[in-house]
Amino acid sequence: MALNPADDRLAAMLPQGVLRPLEPRHLDEPRGYHAGQGGLLAAPRSVDEVAAVVRACAAARVGIVPRGGGTGLVAGSVMPVGPLPLVLSLERMAGIRGVWPDEDVLIAESGATLSQVQDAARAAGRQFPLSLASQGTAQLGGILSTNAGGTAVLRWGNARALCLGVEAVLPDGSVLRDLRRLRKDNTGYAISDLLVGAEGTLGIITAASLRLAPVPQAVATAMLAVPDPAAALRLLALVQGDMAGCVTAFELISGQGLAFLSETLPEIRQPLPGAPWSVLVELSLPRGCDPAAMAEALLLRALDTGLASDAILAQSGAQAAEFWSLREHLPVANRRIGAISSHDISLPLSEIPRFIADAGAMLAAMGDMRVNCFGHLGDGNLHYNVFPAACRNRAEYAALRPRVQEAVHEMVVARGGSFSAEHGVGRLKAADLARWGDPARLAAMRAVKAAMDPLGIMNPGAVLTLPAGGGATISGG
Amino acid sequence: MALNPADDRLAAMLPQGVLRPLEPRHLDEPRGYHAGQGGLLAAPRSVDEVAAVVRACAAARVGIVPRGGGTGLVAGSVMPVGPLPLVLSLERMAGIRGVWPDEDVLIAESGATLSQVQDAARAAGRQFPLSLASQGTAQLGGILSTNAGGTAVLRWGNARALCLGVEAVLPDGSVLRDLRRLRKDNTGYAISDLLVGAEGTLGIITAASLRLAPVPQAVATAMLAVPDPAAALRLLALVQGDMAGCVTAFELISGQGLAFLSETLPEIRQPLPGAPWSVLVELSLPRGCDPAAMAEALLLRALDTGLASDAILAQSGAQAAEFWSLREHLPVANRRIGAISSHDISLPLSEIPRFIADAGAMLAAMGDMRVNCFGHLGDGNLHYNVFPAACRNRAEYAALRPRVQEAVHEMVVARGGSFSAEHGVGRLKAADLARWGDPARLAAMRAVKAAMDPLGIMNPGAVLTLPAGGGATISGG
Repeated sequence: MALNPADDRLAAMLPQGVLRPLEPRHLDEPRGYHAGQGGLLAAPRSVDEVAAVVRACAAARVGIVPRGGGTGLVAGSVMPVGPLPLVLSLERMAGIRGVWPDEDVLIAESGATLSQVQDAARAAGRQFPLSLASQGTAQLGGILSTNAGGTAVLRWGNARALCLGVEAVLPDGSVLRDLRRLRKDNTGYAISDLLVGAEGTLGIITAASLRLAPVPQAVATAMLAVPDPAAALRLLALVQGDMAGCVTAFELISGQGLAFLSETLPEIRQPLPGAPWSVLVELSLPRGCDPAAMAEALLLRALDTGLASDAILAQSGAQAAEFWSLREHLPVANRRIGAISSHDISLPLSEIPRFIADAGAMLAAMGDMRVNCFGHLGDGNLHYNVFPAACRNRAEYAALRPRVQEAVHEMVVARGGSFSAEHGVGRLKAADLARWGDPARLAAMRAVKAAMDPLGIMNPGAVLTLPAGGGATISGG
Repeated sequence: MALNPADDRLAAMLPQGVLRPLEPRHLDEPRGYHAGQGGLLAAPRSVDEVAAVVRACAAARVGIVPRGGGTGLVAGSVMPVGPLPLVLSLERMAGIRGVWPDEDVLIAESGATLSQVQDAARAAGRQFPLSLASQGTAQLGGILSTNAGGTAVLRWGNARALCLGVEAVLPDGSVLRDLRRLRKDNTGYAISDLLVGAEGTLGIITAASLRLAPVPQAVATAMLAVPDPAAALRLLALVQGDMAGCVTAFELISGQGLAFLSETLPEIRQPLPGAPWSVLVELSLPRGCDPAAMAEALLLRALDTGLASDAILAQSGAQAAEFWSLREHLPVANRRIGAISSHDISLPLSEIPRFIADAGAMLAAMGDMRVNCFGHLGDGNLHYNVFPAACRNRAEYAALRPRVQEAVHEMVVARGGSFSAEHGVGRLKAADLARWGDPARLAAMRAVKAAMDPLGIMNPGAVLTLPAGGGATISGG
């Protein structure tokens, strides 16, 4: 791509060797709805080079779009409109700076993939307990900037809860050095926590100090068929009550999800075929107990109390992996079917059964659609995805799509829920945030943004909509 | 106390019935080093009244000193110098707004004591897993504003980790409404997390949505005598590795602490008298395992590997309470002996043994002193308290005290530690923060403070030192 005159001026200000050819992979997003427009690509090799890039962009008034593995689903790392930005990738800053297994701490650079972080922890006899489908591609910087969730939030929290502190380049080019190996440090405002989840709009996280955890002595994995979401929630309360803090995952799977799997991925084995609803439960247990006996007792209680109609306890690690494979292929099947509209929502737990019923009825009144509602029930986080009726295709629903999105989000917000549980705001949901966010909270966010990034160069248009005339937001996808 | 003309003007702007007589209890702090100077006391009854008070103070340019239970140890709620402030107490906003046991969520107002919150959780069959010695007096607002720690941080995190969102009055009098009952909500900056730990300098937290937890099915409590802190840390790694996430407390007790107990509180039973170092371990275990057998196996391993020389497993709840009573009376004994200097520090875990040795040697070279080093070893958080030699009194050490403080903090910071692990900054450590804080982090904090509180009315002089001419900081205590 040819540089325009502004690019030339900026390029001359950057450290040598930092610019790289911009490739298509730096401009796309997984769902293919949006694409970046081009611009420069900077791939610095050190925090000092990142600082130099940020200072140069500040001087040239060029926006910076930070780019991790590009797996985000809300267009936080693609900027399809507005002035050409500099795309900043930390792909050349992927080092593991240190592992302290006895402290359960690891410090890694933002360009490391989640898998690389997990592998480094494992090599030291520990685990980094954050896990999600895109972990082979997603980079730590993106994981933190979006405060990513995943399948172990129930036990370990989101990315923010696993981050002890960050190193970051702030919008003025100064370097925040907060890579603490401390579990407790009450010396002032939670600035690291503020940068985590800010989606690159307040600074560039270049490295992070992460919390590790011991590898559990025993794991029990089970699938249970349950009559409905209300029973699934009562089962969650039962399991949590019995197993203290040992429940590491509690995932909901709908019958529609199993049907999509049968249709698109028949090779995936289904332990409980035809179940209208099922849950995948994982327990991480201490040494000295009998995990099989404990899990079997739990499953029997679930069956005896009518909370489950069928249950299977994995008899081996391989069988447990098979259960997880089913869970992790649900999004793959969804992509093959082709969604009209996908929603990453959370609700107060006790609102969930009524929401699922009411949202289903509402959509049925809007048109002929199928719903695959699944996800991290233990966290109140559902992926509520809407699909064409069988034998129809998504193009027929183009007009309906924005109405579906708005109606679902409106119902979620009215019940105290969130229209973005774990994916973030990016550019796709910036208008939703402006519409549904608490006004005082939004004002505080804008004040913080203006104070820390007065030039507005950090990921312009992400999270907070640009002021009138300052650019444009993009339409939902 | 007579009102000055400024008070009269402010008083006329406040909602009726909000002003209350200022009592001595609103001006003191537990160690008695500092005292507020007087001023008005406002005790609003609703968030709208809090907002009206804040707006009036903004209009009159009167500083607001928020006051919880007054148990803080860093003079965050007393303002001994500067213009007379308005003291804001939420003692009349102490309601439990709701409990959702099936969601493990409770919403309470800031004036509720920690004990009241714990009791409300217990009445609903759950626990609020934050526990500290002053819980009968400390109020939720103060707990959150200082991001308090306590004895269960190892398993449950600090106050921030247990707070799902807050309601707060911001410095412009607007009301932030972020009382989410959600485990996941990635819709923008972590503003609630920013207010937690800001010690009232960015706004007044009026209520909070709190995370509850199931009551464990079985608890095992043990005390072990260990040869030294290094062995205590190896024992911590052993216990954490074996017990997955079931370790709820791991407290270090020094021989000096036991000696102080013998001297000042001989009625407190000591299960392992004379131990040079000991640890108190608590496990919270799931249903279906044999807690006594598991704990005994663990203690045997500790004895076999030489990590412990003696060990006692509590045989009843009463005996476990006795172990905890010993732990909780350590600060009482300290107060009776009378410290020269107290330090609430944290260190990377692997730095702790060398720090304890080096700091001890350093102090021995400075003068004849005794050290009681105890605390939340599992979190790397030590209460490193320095006392007069036997038969000498603290007045003799007045000149030495600031040197001791500085030397200890300097050594902690040099080893990657924190000079305030769980007590906060307040006014006592504001100069320490200005000196040792990362410059970019401090600049970000000042930018956030100026953006959210441009008039500087919120707890002036706490956390961030006032700009030259804007007031005065107080000397360490």
